Amino acid sequence: MAKVTKLSGFPEWLPDGRIAELTVLDTARRVFELHGFASIETRSVEPLEQMLRKGEIDKEVYLLRRLQAAEGESDAGLGLHFDLTVPFARYVLENAGHLEFPFRRYQIQKVWRGERPQEGRFREFTQADIDVVDRDTLAFHHDAEMAVVMATLLAELPIPRAVVQVNNRKLAEGFYLGVGAADTAAVLRNVDRLDKIGAQKVADLLVSDAGLTAEAAQACLAMASIRTSDTSFVERVLALGVRNDLLDEGLDELARVVSAANAVVPGAVVADLKIARGLDYYTGTVYETQLIGYENVGSIASGGRYDSLASDGKQTYPGVGISLGVTRLVSILLGRALVSVSRSVPSAVLVAVIDEEARPASEAVATALRARGIPCEVAPKADKFGKQIRHADRRGIPFVWFPDDAGDSVKDIRTGDQGPADSALWNPPPADLHPSVRSTVAQEEAP
Amino acid sequence: MAKVTKLSGFPEWLPDGRIAELTVLDTARRVFELHGFASIETRSVEPLEQMLRKGEIDKEVYLLRRLQAAEGESDAGLGLHFDLTVPFARYVLENAGHLEFPFRRYQIQKVWRGERPQEGRFREFTQADIDVVDRDTLAFHHDAEMAVVMATLLAELPIPRAVVQVNNRKLAEGFYLGVGAADTAAVLRNVDRLDKIGAQKVADLLVSDAGLTAEAAQACLAMASIRTSDTSFVERVLALGVRNDLLDEGLDELARVVSAANAVVPGAVVADLKIARGLDYYTGTVYETQLIGYENVGSIASGGRYDSLASDGKQTYPGVGISLGVTRLVSILLGRALVSVSRSVPSAVLVAVIDEEARPASEAVATALRARGIPCEVAPKADKFGKQIRHADRRGIPFVWFPDDAGDSVKDIRTGDQGPADSALWNPPPADLHPSVRSTVAQEEAP
Repeated sequence: MAKVTKLSGFPEWLPDGRIAELTVLDTARRVFELHGFASIETRSVEPLEQMLRKGEIDKEVYLLRRLQAAEGESDAGLGLHFDLTVPFARYVLENAGHLEFPFRRYQIQKVWRGERPQEGRFREFTQADIDVVDRDTLAFHHDAEMAVVMATLLAELPIPRAVVQVNNRKLAEGFYLGVGAADTAAVLRNVDRLDKIGAQKVADLLVSDAGLTAEAAQACLAMASIRTSDTSFVERVLALGVRNDLLDEGLDELARVVSAANAVVPGAVVADLKIARGLDYYTGTVYETQLIGYENVGSIASGGRYDSLASDGKQTYPGVGISLGVTRLVSILLGRALVSVSRSVPSAVLVAVIDEEARPASEAVATALRARGIPCEVAPKADKFGKQIRHADRRGIPFVWFPDDAGDSVKDIRTGDQGPADSALWNPPPADLHPSVRSTVAQEEAP
Repeated sequence: MAKVTKLSGFPEWLPDGRIAELTVLDTARRVFELHGFASIETRSVEPLEQMLRKGEIDKEVYLLRRLQAAEGESDAGLGLHFDLTVPFARYVLENAGHLEFPFRRYQIQKVWRGERPQEGRFREFTQADIDVVDRDTLAFHHDAEMAVVMATLLAELPIPRAVVQVNNRKLAEGFYLGVGAADTAAVLRNVDRLDKIGAQKVADLLVSDAGLTAEAAQACLAMASIRTSDTSFVERVLALGVRNDLLDEGLDELARVVSAANAVVPGAVVADLKIARGLDYYTGTVYETQLIGYENVGSIASGGRYDSLASDGKQTYPGVGISLGVTRLVSILLGRALVSVSRSVPSAVLVAVIDEEARPASEAVATALRARGIPCEVAPKADKFGKQIRHADRRGIPFVWFPDDAGDSVKDIRTGDQGPADSALWNPPPADLHPSVRSTVAQEEAP
């Protein structure tokens, strides 16, 4: 292997960065399981025609072809999945007879998109999703639950403060209908560009592209500017004077999400009426999540309610879910040095080797420590002790163990303290047992 | 989404099967970290020319193409990786300046091969690899370490007994040279088919294809039939009367691996002189692993020493590693019902809901339990209690919690026992806290 190629959009982390990523992944799994979500994985590929049914994303799919495929052989039009929601819907349909509903699952996997790479946007990235699906109807309280679980997870991570922003498609569509819009999708599409092109350009497009009156366009912009941490958004929308039944339904749903979420995670979930989400399968609640101070990188956790994504013609499985963009989040943490990692290896102890003939004695110490859950490694060479200590130091391993027929000893190489130790009894301080990841920015940290 | 397609070779598990897989993955990670291996992940794609340099596998690579790629645009010839060793070698070269050597890493990821699916052989599957690489030279004791770590991991899994079989390329090649073979690769290739086509056909091919004399072919077969759990294979090989320096070196290396491994994991590692491993990058020690009673499914953990896989022209990074075939192993466990899973959801407790207005009270109980690490879920509907209990029962959730203004209670729905409980204090028995996976076959289980 001679040439080495970095591939834009396919990030890889060094071992300490991977420890930061593992902290995110482990915390996500723990929080999801505490909330009763079961793990599943789906295959990485889906038939192309399945993925294309969901619009928008079709430009960005990677197709597969076997290198040795016969001329014209297409491998049945398989592509790499671009999210975990569409594969999950297919999994539910395929396995409905074996699942208990409502079915709560989490799924942590890589997805692929052939997009142009830029900050926070990758061609291969990891997502951590939770969804709940039920048969025929899905109780609405799950819409609040998704925001609560994600806010709970984000609060446990060593990251800047995050705020889950919630909106509702019915609210938006009802409002657009109420101001006389004929093509509500065109209004939504343009309002979705608010952060990118600004209010004036969106107002112009709402007239020229979506066919609104100037007054209606201004009402839509006024509505989109509403953001409240409680249910006061309802009054503010109603004060705009627009009336529509679907709007009322959306206002009611969003108010229920915001008030239920604030009862559990105060201040972590807000109503933000400009949130649109591009994907066309959402039918009610939609979520995005800002990392405070790093809003320009985009949402780090997004999702929504989809009432008709999974249907086999006879039965429909409505669902609601939210997805943490693990790679995007980790790339911010590492790229902006927002976390520090205590060491790059799992080992808490390096067991020194006196000479190669005595290696089995050092292995025996390591085996004894491992049996009690203490990660360790044996020095690769029987160098002088100073060199073995430097070996540990370069890796951030805090302790070096010296086997000795007259009695072993262990040295904390940070302080230089050294004392006798028994491999059947000794423990490192709990904080040194595993690598730790800490936020480098002032936060509302646990006391 | 209407039609649902099963894809041969792309396995998916139901939630209880996934719990069995997570047990394998979690145990692998724990054992690897206890031995000081750091986690890394590499991107899923590699430039095709990198992968093709390693021979054999080229037939089976999946190439990628963006759906909207311009005519003739090739995405730089990217393919999905077919193993984790070649990407790891590339990662080491790319990041050598940021790594400490010897570099010990584990890597648990999916790989893809366009092979014809059959039992134990998939198009998408998960591997769990450990490797150690160093600059210029890598100490030989790591060759024993790989076998020890894998044997230790396999002994901790709820699976039938597994035996790591070790051989050495130098031993085999030296022996073939010693019997006068001109094309040792042809001899190796044919001996590698011993399990598939039998001794007589291999003997014929060694004469017709590899150009050996009938006597030399018989000597090679006699050598390949040697399997010992200690170092007695050395005498048995020497008794065949073949002499060669490379043979001596291989015998010595293999003897060192077998004796060092048996000092740590007695009986779990044997010398088996028919093990060849098809891949062409191994240069010394090679490993395969039999699951006793299920040998016909193939090796569940394989690897070897590679002295020249990673080289940038100036510097070479020799390595040794072994890879657990997670998907193959799990498919055996699930397909043959060799494990039972205690429940299909993480929840230990279902918190009942008295009526929808009282849902926040049930949520508060769940929050209190989760704060102390007890996975739970709140009943999705305020059905009659009998129905809520059946909801828990269908999922295998052992406990149902009843909030009550006069004092909560909790019921073990397996025994019917119900008693008062405080959500700030109550704990389930430790065995019920998380789902458990047990072997269904008699084994040398821990007492």
